[in-house]
Amino acid sequence: MAGKMVTNGAATSGAAARPPGKTAREAVQGLAAHEAAARTAASGGGVGRVHLIGAGPGDPELLTLRALRLLQQADVVVHDRLVSDEVMACIPAHVRRIPVGKAAGFHPVPQEQINALLVELGLSGLTVARLKGGDPTIFGRGGEEFEAVTAAGIPCDYVPGITAAQGAAASARFPLTHRGLATGLRHVTGHRARDAALDLDWASLADPQTTLAVYMGAANMTEIAAELIRHGMPSDLPVLAVSQASTPQEQRLHATLQDIPDALARRPLPAPVLFILGHVAALAEDCALPQGVGRPEWRLVAHG
Amino acid sequence: MAGKMVTNGAATSGAAARPPGKTAREAVQGLAAHEAAARTAASGGGVGRVHLIGAGPGDPELLTLRALRLLQQADVVVHDRLVSDEVMACIPAHVRRIPVGKAAGFHPVPQEQINALLVELGLSGLTVARLKGGDPTIFGRGGEEFEAVTAAGIPCDYVPGITAAQGAAASARFPLTHRGLATGLRHVTGHRARDAALDLDWASLADPQTTLAVYMGAANMTEIAAELIRHGMPSDLPVLAVSQASTPQEQRLHATLQDIPDALARRPLPAPVLFILGHVAALAEDCALPQGVGRPEWRLVAHG
Repeated sequence: MAGKMVTNGAATSGAAARPPGKTAREAVQGLAAHEAAARTAASGGGVGRVHLIGAGPGDPELLTLRALRLLQQADVVVHDRLVSDEVMACIPAHVRRIPVGKAAGFHPVPQEQINALLVELGLSGLTVARLKGGDPTIFGRGGEEFEAVTAAGIPCDYVPGITAAQGAAASARFPLTHRGLATGLRHVTGHRARDAALDLDWASLADPQTTLAVYMGAANMTEIAAELIRHGMPSDLPVLAVSQASTPQEQRLHATLQDIPDALARRPLPAPVLFILGHVAALAEDCALPQGVGRPEWRLVAHG
Repeated sequence: MAGKMVTNGAATSGAAARPPGKTAREAVQGLAAHEAAARTAASGGGVGRVHLIGAGPGDPELLTLRALRLLQQADVVVHDRLVSDEVMACIPAHVRRIPVGKAAGFHPVPQEQINALLVELGLSGLTVARLKGGDPTIFGRGGEEFEAVTAAGIPCDYVPGITAAQGAAASARFPLTHRGLATGLRHVTGHRARDAALDLDWASLADPQTTLAVYMGAANMTEIAAELIRHGMPSDLPVLAVSQASTPQEQRLHATLQDIPDALARRPLPAPVLFILGHVAALAEDCALPQGVGRPEWRLVAHG
């Protein structure tokens, strides 16, 4: 069932085959049907399997050994659009890629349709690598994909990935917990479903001794900062915003909790953006910027 | 400065040279002095570097590509005793290993002495891999080692690792966050320094919608469970205790928050033990047990 083992390296082509004039959704539907038909014929109808694989924060060297192995054994990779080019380059050239998920200028594929795609590919006998940013067990609805796939009788497993918070900490060389600064670490999302209120327990979150890693929070950071301060978080709590952590495009923005909304407004960062709220953020190294770019005016607080 | 690249595999020897009759501390001191002297002579006195490397939860396939590369380029590996044998086997046979940290029957090396050892080795020109369980930026005092090493003028960096919580989730195939069950994930330690009180914000922790990963909590689980229940956590909240997550020796114990102290008393688990507290724990697969061992009587709650 599995493809041949291919050594890491060369594969850099493989842009998803998206016929011009079709939406991403139509392209996915067409691809899936085509793949399934071809594979069913070839395999004699045996069931495949689905690996829910963490792509990590972006740097391909932060993939786990298992993630790399399974990407290289897959028949097809179903991937979030925010998975970095460098990680995508680890997939052998002959492996089909199907992009799903959000990116600027694309309609995201609804979750139900991603689930159906994975089931269809798995039932057709393919070894499917479902490649998700960060870790598939933390946010990103990996659990829903696991349920859909296993409910269809297809073997499924999770392959852990380094989270963006861990990638950002390594990249800017600061610890996520540290004696006297943070006794714990908490991951939350700052994303709201459509017009719903942010479903966060502000009183519980307003603990300056726990490092907060806020994912998908850029759009709502004004509200998040205001509510945390209203519930007792120090307004001068250090905040680090990190765009595309661990990649060559990484950008960092230092601010305080009070100032982070304005800082973001003046200097929007490319997605995905992670926020680290807590005293440890003051230990993060200076902004990562492309060579030749000087110290930005939006770096609001000193640290050290 | 770096050693030769060596392919993964064979190295399984390399038990630390601990002369009989000496304590671990004395052995470390002796080794460090010896290494330093030998290396200073060989290198002409140039400064080395220290990599703080996450060993992950135990399964060597959960190492990152960078961790494996740097382990194979190191001159010396300073490792926690709880790093799994399988991960230690990824270190080439010629590389010197120095065990520090806790294990049954050994006196742990004090943190200040570990810091001094890393500085001494780094100053002597060695490329040092400091191998720590899980992730070096989360618990385990990696930040203190980083500070000591950089204060001595030795380049230092963090290499992320998969946490035990992520390893346990992958192994027992459950998500750490999940729609309707958990909106976030929080890592805390249940360890107390000597006779100090547990420094935990119980009211903030007693949130059944946030998955709690409790590290080093086995000795204090009676107090932890009681305090959480007293602060409003449901007494029937699912709890999963995982020993040696992701290794062939992994054991799982399912219980409720109310019952976990008794369950642990009846069936103590080998260290390290991680606790997952939250509704997602009910999605974890059945106990991992050695082949031939039946369903244990200490599995207290059904799930599914």
